[in-house]
Amino acid sequence: MNRRSFLRGGAVAAAATTAVAASGLAAPALAQSRTEWRMVTSWPKNFPGVGTSAQRLADRIAAMSAGRLVIKVFGAGELAPAFGTFDAVQQGAAECYHSPSYYFAGKNPGLTLFTSIPLGMTAWEAHGWWLHGGGEALQDEMTRPFGIKALPCINTGVQAAGWFNKEIKTVEDLKGLKMRTAGLNAEILRRLGVNVVTLPPGDIFQAMQSGTVDAAEWIGPWNDLAFGLHRITKNYYVAGTNEPCAVAELGVSEKHWNELPEDLQAIIRSACAAEYETAFTEYFTRNAEAMVVLKNEHGVQVRTFPDEVQKVLADAARAVALELRDRGDDVTRRAWTSYMTYLDHARTYGNSAEGGYLALRAKFDPIPVG
Amino acid sequence: MNRRSFLRGGAVAAAATTAVAASGLAAPALAQSRTEWRMVTSWPKNFPGVGTSAQRLADRIAAMSAGRLVIKVFGAGELAPAFGTFDAVQQGAAECYHSPSYYFAGKNPGLTLFTSIPLGMTAWEAHGWWLHGGGEALQDEMTRPFGIKALPCINTGVQAAGWFNKEIKTVEDLKGLKMRTAGLNAEILRRLGVNVVTLPPGDIFQAMQSGTVDAAEWIGPWNDLAFGLHRITKNYYVAGTNEPCAVAELGVSEKHWNELPEDLQAIIRSACAAEYETAFTEYFTRNAEAMVVLKNEHGVQVRTFPDEVQKVLADAARAVALELRDRGDDVTRRAWTSYMTYLDHARTYGNSAEGGYLALRAKFDPIPVG
Repeated sequence: MNRRSFLRGGAVAAAATTAVAASGLAAPALAQSRTEWRMVTSWPKNFPGVGTSAQRLADRIAAMSAGRLVIKVFGAGELAPAFGTFDAVQQGAAECYHSPSYYFAGKNPGLTLFTSIPLGMTAWEAHGWWLHGGGEALQDEMTRPFGIKALPCINTGVQAAGWFNKEIKTVEDLKGLKMRTAGLNAEILRRLGVNVVTLPPGDIFQAMQSGTVDAAEWIGPWNDLAFGLHRITKNYYVAGTNEPCAVAELGVSEKHWNELPEDLQAIIRSACAAEYETAFTEYFTRNAEAMVVLKNEHGVQVRTFPDEVQKVLADAARAVALELRDRGDDVTRRAWTSYMTYLDHARTYGNSAEGGYLALRAKFDPIPVG
Repeated sequence: MNRRSFLRGGAVAAAATTAVAASGLAAPALAQSRTEWRMVTSWPKNFPGVGTSAQRLADRIAAMSAGRLVIKVFGAGELAPAFGTFDAVQQGAAECYHSPSYYFAGKNPGLTLFTSIPLGMTAWEAHGWWLHGGGEALQDEMTRPFGIKALPCINTGVQAAGWFNKEIKTVEDLKGLKMRTAGLNAEILRRLGVNVVTLPPGDIFQAMQSGTVDAAEWIGPWNDLAFGLHRITKNYYVAGTNEPCAVAELGVSEKHWNELPEDLQAIIRSACAAEYETAFTEYFTRNAEAMVVLKNEHGVQVRTFPDEVQKVLADAARAVALELRDRGDDVTRRAWTSYMTYLDHARTYGNSAEGGYLALRAKFDPIPVG
């Protein structure tokens, strides 16, 4: 009997015995096992937000399984480099990773759809598509050839457009800039003459400080404040089309996923969805607090790109998105169409719902606090 | 040994035994028990969204606990009336309820803060406040005198302003209308001359059809389409300040909550957070789809109130919110200040994040789907 059928057999036996046990009475003994997994991550160990959320995901799973599934979390560079987590799981150096799938666009450019698309979906739209709009089955199809089962487990929300060591007044000001960014935004900025540098998150501050880059986009106020980017420049650009959300996922070795009994699979599924929401709302909360600190204590100038620049960026975003489809394989093209169809409905409905309400609320005086 | 210490002892024994078991090997037997709870709800049994989400919450808990905690879900009127679920749990007729806390404002008006405030928080802000901004401790303090532990487990998003059998062109048009609504919106509309009727959800269609009411606000396109409200009038008002989100909660008898071992408490916590996100994104997805059907297949006119009406409603929203504080008990006043302080940050930050992005996206051509 291999491990898989052993566990499956155990789950069936458990269902059979609990079904006959009366409420409140001890049921017959269940066979229990303890499984230990390694999680490689793309973040500095316990970095506020992405790092602490990875640990909290592991803690949820350990608590819910009463210690039957224990996941040890490794920071970037401990077992695998920040961009090497997918490979580490494929090669068996870890059972799961915690990373955004667009770090693995080299495997299949279509994976970018499951992290973020410039001019694309927000955090709740991206999860809505994955949970209720066919996204999960399409991602399964895309990652199965690599032996990976991915489940979204965090969204860091609307990303700031970034820190720039000079003000951006026209599209010309972008030309020749050296900038750290990621995902399709890198391709968009390249077309506008930016020298894009791909750096793992842990190297961003040093690169800005040493002048290796002139500009950097990372996540948002909470993490940017933690990295200290405000000590290098005060020009902080927000609310761009560059990255309307950013999903990271728990990527599990499919072999290990399939070996889990149903209750542990159910625990991982709910843990990921709960942590997605918990981390997204944590980012929103801490970003709001950090923005006050950046402005009031550090004199940061919160800016948005001028309309002319926004328009050129939006035009480039459309072009790059269409090329992602045209150059994609069959599953990428189907995932692209599914994503864009969902986005089309979401955009129309959202303008009369969440988007409509936020615009309305911004127009009126707030309820006075004090 | 009472049941509580028995279960606690079991959890400790489980931790001790799993700690020594090697990975993949069967651990010594654990004492297992099966607990059955009854969940009373404010919704028709399995009503799309609120009803199916209540069932899915119970299913998650059963799956994650491998059948150790099984919750039987009852529709409104089966064990308790729609507005009587809180009482039913207090009196021991059920172990938990699935309802929005503003249905119980008669117990303490401050409970409204945990469902929705006109001109207040969105779905992610409300959960952010509860999870990361002190909301949970304040709600605990407010429900403890009633022996209830509440956990948010669904948010139905921005509510439509409602269906009106005539067009609303001025504030005068609201006067004398008989309308079904709930929460603080009821108080706001009363001040503008509306005869507000409080009806349980299951009675709304009949009341509109018979002319008992001239207007009704329920949730949004998905549920409104299911109720068939478009068969009575085509005037559908959206994106008001009336109800920017609506939380419903799992309200558990505190006695039963405290009796649970830690792993089952952890399971319920993650199940509620996962279902909050799953249901919110499901509402967003199905609302977007239903809006297309309402407009294209049923000729529904999607309207927003004229600016003059929106402004009067916003002014009344502020006045009613301030009175909630001024007339509240000590814990209500503290919860109010905590809510409004969070909202103040969220409003400022959100305008440069989620709100800013949505406004920007609406300004530009979308990525073409076809």
